[in-house]
Amino acid sequence: MRIGIDIGGTTIKGGLLDAKNNIIERVVRKTPAGDVSNSICDLLAGIIDELLVKSGFTTNQIEFCGIGSPGAIDPKSGIIKYSNNIVMHNVPVVSTLSKEYPFPFAVDNDANCAALGEAMFGGGKGEEDVIMVTLGTGVGSGIIIGKKLFTGGGGAGGEAGHMVIQADGLPCNCGLAGCWEKYASATALISQTKEAMYFHSDSLMHKIANTDCKISGETPFLAAEKGDEAGKAVIDKYLGYIATGIINLANLFRPQVVVLGGGVSNAGEKILAPIQAKVDAGIYGGKINPPVKITLATLGNDAGILGAAYLRSASDQT
Amino acid sequence: MRIGIDIGGTTIKGGLLDAKNNIIERVVRKTPAGDVSNSICDLLAGIIDELLVKSGFTTNQIEFCGIGSPGAIDPKSGIIKYSNNIVMHNVPVVSTLSKEYPFPFAVDNDANCAALGEAMFGGGKGEEDVIMVTLGTGVGSGIIIGKKLFTGGGGAGGEAGHMVIQADGLPCNCGLAGCWEKYASATALISQTKEAMYFHSDSLMHKIANTDCKISGETPFLAAEKGDEAGKAVIDKYLGYIATGIINLANLFRPQVVVLGGGVSNAGEKILAPIQAKVDAGIYGGKINPPVKITLATLGNDAGILGAAYLRSASDQT
Repeated sequence: MRIGIDIGGTTIKGGLLDAKNNIIERVVRKTPAGDVSNSICDLLAGIIDELLVKSGFTTNQIEFCGIGSPGAIDPKSGIIKYSNNIVMHNVPVVSTLSKEYPFPFAVDNDANCAALGEAMFGGGKGEEDVIMVTLGTGVGSGIIIGKKLFTGGGGAGGEAGHMVIQADGLPCNCGLAGCWEKYASATALISQTKEAMYFHSDSLMHKIANTDCKISGETPFLAAEKGDEAGKAVIDKYLGYIATGIINLANLFRPQVVVLGGGVSNAGEKILAPIQAKVDAGIYGGKINPPVKITLATLGNDAGILGAAYLRSASDQT
Repeated sequence: MRIGIDIGGTTIKGGLLDAKNNIIERVVRKTPAGDVSNSICDLLAGIIDELLVKSGFTTNQIEFCGIGSPGAIDPKSGIIKYSNNIVMHNVPVVSTLSKEYPFPFAVDNDANCAALGEAMFGGGKGEEDVIMVTLGTGVGSGIIIGKKLFTGGGGAGGEAGHMVIQADGLPCNCGLAGCWEKYASATALISQTKEAMYFHSDSLMHKIANTDCKISGETPFLAAEKGDEAGKAVIDKYLGYIATGIINLANLFRPQVVVLGGGVSNAGEKILAPIQAKVDAGIYGGKINPPVKITLATLGNDAGILGAAYLRSASDQT
């Protein structure tokens, strides 16, 4: 049995996995407000204890417990260095909990845990090398090489959202210009939609936005479904930007699968085929080299728990 | 003792390394013309035999022999799949030579071998994670993670020259637009120089090009040294493009060192400091995350031999 815990801004979710990796017990706690640096370990222990009580398992039956946390994590030392949404500073979560329980612990970034979960049990199931790309407010990524999380030297890599894809492009909060997330995030799609609407006053997107009382990432999709050329053009260009970043990752890592998650991936099959076609046309070496398949995330909120539960074997770099 | 062999377009160079990794014997053969698929293994065996005779070592004293070859290589099966400059098709070089000698063999791409050599014994010496970037006619790269060559799934990754850094940019031979090598190669520098000369008829670059009877990558450097503003601007923009690609790699891999090789790196210290400054200013997380140091390649032609000699322990992914 394994335990995975996903520390989130609203709730902290724990799950107990059976030998077949089904989540057979769950405990959810509301995330406390304020600085939790001194209380988070007790809170996590409370979740573990409750999972054990509910399931009837003893500590000796637990192989491992992994924790996914937002913020900057040092997986090697097992420390949550800092987190802003949930305020934490230098919490030695692994060493603290290891004193209380006989099984091993590990901690890593929550996005990395979700990527590992999707890679192992979701959209990348069965493959060795998987990259998860989360298209939301920004663009996040998690890189799995040989079924292990790859986070770069000092855990400071894997920031695919901050690859420059347009050297003289839009300014990014990180200080650079032209970062992938300025073109491929849901936020970017909305900007691109607004820009196209400005230049195409006759586009159906105006009517749809008025009906919905807002311009959203769905606006161009709804317009395109009704044959609107400006809406189609927005989507084609936007999916092109997504494909460009995936091609960059593919040319460097050549994973078997790239899993798309985040709000944009809810568009599902209608974005999958065009992105796949653009990636196939663009990746280096084309058909001579192994294919890179684009899939959708399948695990939803459970990805973080499942990935955390497998952190150890995954980030163990021996 | 180890043997490294570097198959090149003009010569095939073999070196025998002592226990301190000094190349104590060398054998150089002219690369034959035409298709050498059926003769290359005999030629390599001849080099190995001569190294043994010259050094007085017996086959039992050799730990390992690695081979660097141009073209598409499958390191797992030990096959040179195809090579164009030196014509070879499906040469099972590892299995063939392994039948003749008691020590193990491995083969990998020549650029990967050079990168591994520089990472282990040259510009990246002593570091775990090193990326070698070769700025020549194109832009090549070799990625070393944890002292091991990383070549991506199926050995088809590591193509940093074909990262898109300008999504609507210059067309590349690979079929994409805006690849890094269209902006950061020596070829690109010459194009950028010509463009600047066209727009700045008063630039010193014209005089320098006339004196040299050619426009080369050195033209803007020579002009800049004499205070020419147009020349300085060419260099600043060009080094910015180099930095952009390095930042992309740093944000993904966060190596401790990026080693610059190839013709452009001969400019030496005068390009190193400005590239370092641009990278420091642009990498994600800035000073919170570990630094990425830019260095120059130091091994010259020996990088390929030294890297090949350490292929095995490096690409052994167990």
